Amino acid sequence: MIDHGGVMQELRVILGERVQDSEALRAQHGENESWYPQALPDFVAFPRTTDEVSRIMHLCHRLNVPVTAQGARSAIEGQHLAVHGGLALDMTNMNKIVAVHESDLDAVVQPGVTREQLNAELRTSGLFFPVDPGANATIGGMASTRASGTTAVRYGTMRDVVLALEVVRADGRVIRTGSRARKSSNGYDLTSLFIGAEGTLGIITEITVQLSGIPEAQAAAICRMPSVEDAVNAVIMTIQLGMPIARIELLDEKSVHAFNLYADTNMPEAPHLMVEFHGSERSVKDQSEAFGLVVEEFGGMDFTWSKRSEERNRLWTMRHNSQYAERMLRAGPIDQYSTDICVPISKLSDAVAAAYELGEKYGMTMCVIGHAGDGNFHCGIVIEAGNLEERARAKAFSDDLARIAIRMDGTISGEHGVGMGKVNLMREQHGDALDTMQVLKSAMDPKGILNPGKIFPA
Amino acid sequence: MIDHGGVMQELRVILGERVQDSEALRAQHGENESWYPQALPDFVAFPRTTDEVSRIMHLCHRLNVPVTAQGARSAIEGQHLAVHGGLALDMTNMNKIVAVHESDLDAVVQPGVTREQLNAELRTSGLFFPVDPGANATIGGMASTRASGTTAVRYGTMRDVVLALEVVRADGRVIRTGSRARKSSNGYDLTSLFIGAEGTLGIITEITVQLSGIPEAQAAAICRMPSVEDAVNAVIMTIQLGMPIARIELLDEKSVHAFNLYADTNMPEAPHLMVEFHGSERSVKDQSEAFGLVVEEFGGMDFTWSKRSEERNRLWTMRHNSQYAERMLRAGPIDQYSTDICVPISKLSDAVAAAYELGEKYGMTMCVIGHAGDGNFHCGIVIEAGNLEERARAKAFSDDLARIAIRMDGTISGEHGVGMGKVNLMREQHGDALDTMQVLKSAMDPKGILNPGKIFPA
Ligand SMILES: Cc1cc2nc3c(=O)[nH]c(=O)nc-3n(C[C@H](O)[C@H](O)[C@H](O)COP(=O)(O)OP(=O)(O)OC[C@H]3O[C@@H](n4cnc5c(N)ncnc54)[C@H](O)[C@@H]3O)c2cc1C
Ligand SMILES: Cc1cc2nc3c(=O)[nH]c(=O)nc-3n(C[C@H](O)[C@H](O)[C@H](O)COP(=O)(O)OP(=O)(O)OC[C@H]3O[C@@H](n4cnc5c(N)ncnc54)[C@H](O)[C@@H]3O)c2cc1C
Repeated sequence: MIDHGGVMQELRVILGERVQDSEALRAQHGENESWYPQALPDFVAFPRTTDEVSRIMHLCHRLNVPVTAQGARSAIEGQHLAVHGGLALDMTNMNKIVAVHESDLDAVVQPGVTREQLNAELRTSGLFFPVDPGANATIGGMASTRASGTTAVRYGTMRDVVLALEVVRADGRVIRTGSRARKSSNGYDLTSLFIGAEGTLGIITEITVQLSGIPEAQAAAICRMPSVEDAVNAVIMTIQLGMPIARIELLDEKSVHAFNLYADTNMPEAPHLMVEFHGSERSVKDQSEAFGLVVEEFGGMDFTWSKRSEERNRLWTMRHNSQYAERMLRAGPIDQYSTDICVPISKLSDAVAAAYELGEKYGMTMCVIGHAGDGNFHCGIVIEAGNLEERARAKAFSDDLARIAIRMDGTISGEHGVGMGKVNLMREQHGDALDTMQVLKSAMDPKGILNPGKIFPA
Repeated sequence: MIDHGGVMQELRVILGERVQDSEALRAQHGENESWYPQALPDFVAFPRTTDEVSRIMHLCHRLNVPVTAQGARSAIEGQHLAVHGGLALDMTNMNKIVAVHESDLDAVVQPGVTREQLNAELRTSGLFFPVDPGANATIGGMASTRASGTTAVRYGTMRDVVLALEVVRADGRVIRTGSRARKSSNGYDLTSLFIGAEGTLGIITEITVQLSGIPEAQAAAICRMPSVEDAVNAVIMTIQLGMPIARIELLDEKSVHAFNLYADTNMPEAPHLMVEFHGSERSVKDQSEAFGLVVEEFGGMDFTWSKRSEERNRLWTMRHNSQYAERMLRAGPIDQYSTDICVPISKLSDAVAAAYELGEKYGMTMCVIGHAGDGNFHCGIVIEAGNLEERARAKAFSDDLARIAIRMDGTISGEHGVGMGKVNLMREQHGDALDTMQVLKSAMDPKGILNPGKIFPA
């Protein structure tokens, strides 16, 4: 048991009024965008500097207080929930852009900077930060879930774009990993170790990310396909041909239906591909034409592309709102559930087919939408709020689908992460390698105070 | 002390005649391509299967026998030398290509497969494995040093192309990391942890690598530049413009001189850039023209490009032989020494200037050659064989240069690794993060039997 008053008193010495234990703040920091029950931390802290984070960790380590970092709290698998109580470390006040090195195409940011904030700052530089999960997540949260988004097929995931980190370890020691060099062979890859660790190995207090040049030309397109299978096969061929496509997203009939309801659009309710091409004027034209031939082969209809940036923005805003649009698939109060498997591209068609089959079997209300170019797709499931039987069915469905991904040599999570939702599958995914992860966790956080209850089965 | 006879007897049970302790074999496995003194292992083993490696590790763990994996033994920093004796684990008999998944653009190989062997196998597939250190290294060795080469600027390093590993841990347990999915967020990134670990965390017994499609068109070019500074500035501009160049290598006057002597060529002895463009016919043409304009701006001369594959091969074979060509820079028996710093691209010009200045100060016989597009370059130094005073000077030169890289937010090694040569700089590079690396090492290999004497200062 935590000595509440004692801990609060010591935290106040470090943070003054920037640590709170009001019901309202605790409740706010106990929410999530998915179906997980509310989980209240005992305290909520708002550090502003690495030194403060270091002192907080030193204190919590000494007093055995669990610490769960929080960014935008948009995680899908409950990663940010302080399920063992303790301190919610809200990183959103650490939101300074420390440096933009235009000539090196990199930026140094505090963890609470959001992707949209960074891109707004970069607007005049000719550069952009490419990773784009639907939510306006923080860079710290994105690094911690190894997030990706619609552009990963071309620009990579957080694993690929993070060059260096500053991290506060469980006991308060501060370390720096990586450098601004583009490649390195100078010891263990600590940067990669913290990326995707969901705050269980350390608190990230600074991040150096690689940027990309805004391409000379960009064109977006949307194309209606006769069936999901045709759409997926067009994606597979596009990838196998090595086309440097910047985005290629699959939407099934149901997800288009959801968009129509949510955004008041009137797209034909059929499977679609949403794509984007980046490059020189000429290469964008070439790519668009080449892609046009691919979709033609699979019966694509109404293929039109546009370079107008309003149209492009409209398209991707719509796509980024899919999580919210899906809520329209069912009347009344609902909970949301999302699967997230990722498979080798040649298996994508089979995986999607399996998802529909299982969806039918388990009676799911769902749509299929995904970063198909990566072999990654989501079943967006809506369940009646609080209906435990239906939630259990959704979990069984999700687990069955994840097992299919494992059998296909793929992964139970392409981008959403483990959190609490995939914990029961970690042994099946990793076998004895899970013990190796546990060895690392115990070595880095012997007291187990960093985000307990995540990644590892109890 | 190892009970030599006892260990040999037990190893024989596992390996029969495939473990040896003859002077000749031990001497052969104690050599290196750099200046490090010969270091003889006590035994040399040639496992053929993961199970054998597992049994060997189990045995050596029980008996406290050091184990140093060896691939092609082309490491530059003595990484593969069994400096604490024990077992040299020669992985070159594990050289099967397990699977090529053409439609997923990946291949599964045993660690002893060399990059040339893999590319020969892929010849008819339309795919290739892009990472190309000068030596015909093994994929296992390359993964273990986080190797790269001339194509990293476009296709990435071993960090980027390895999807999954099978690893035998220090005590013989076998684990699998990663999957064939292109992205994943399912727990700690163990794959990245073993990449670049130089055999100090486990023995890699299988590797899944990403392949690339052979581009429709390729053109190579070589261009004479008025000065190294102009050459470097042309590289910087090329990178900052975001040109998707496939290779861009810097050669200074001295390295061209070395090539002329070694390969009997008669290039003008001036700084050069060697480049390659990959893409569609049209994009290769566009890139070549755009690059032509860049070098023109910096006074480039005789810029010609060729799509003839013999010419391209000649060029890159020459480049890959630089380590041997450099030997021509000095008569008599010599030792070789190579620096390997990598800096943010905007600092490359300053870094190269600093290298020449220091070279002068320390009286080095050297040339400068490098993967300039990554901000990575080598000073190839030739020292009189066995001249300890000169070797000490070369080391002091190399250390000073590495410190400059650290100050520029770069790295002491872009690709060659730590081995024994960079051990003394690890604290300066990493600060307290070195302790974190040590925590991981102790957790993964508590008895310290995996390649002792590497990465960490004694
Ligand atoms: C509408 C919507 C769409 C989405 N689309 C995508 C998508 O396309 N792709 C995708 O990958 N994800 C997607 N997500 C999930 C979510 O956006 C990502 O998981 C995101 O990376 C979470 O960032 P965050 O700032 O919200 O972090 P949080 O949710 O607050 O935290 C996530 C995890 O990171 C840890 N953490 C946060 N900050 C730090 C820090 N500074 N140091 C250490 N640990 C830290 C937390 O402890 C927690 O474990 C979506 C979510 C929503 C709601
Ligand atoms: C002429 C020449 C040019 C070169 N050019 C480059 C270059 O451009 N870029 C570059 O990056 N490097 C270059 N190098 C260095 C060298 O080629 C690389 O370091 C290469 O990755 C080493 O591979 P290898 O098979 O020779 O491994 P080895 O030298 O045998 O071993 C290297 C390290 O890997 C470990 N290891 C080997 N196999 C395994 C395994 N299966 N499991 C665990 N650990 C293992 C060893 O213990 C050792 O620590 C060059 C070397 C030469 C001689």
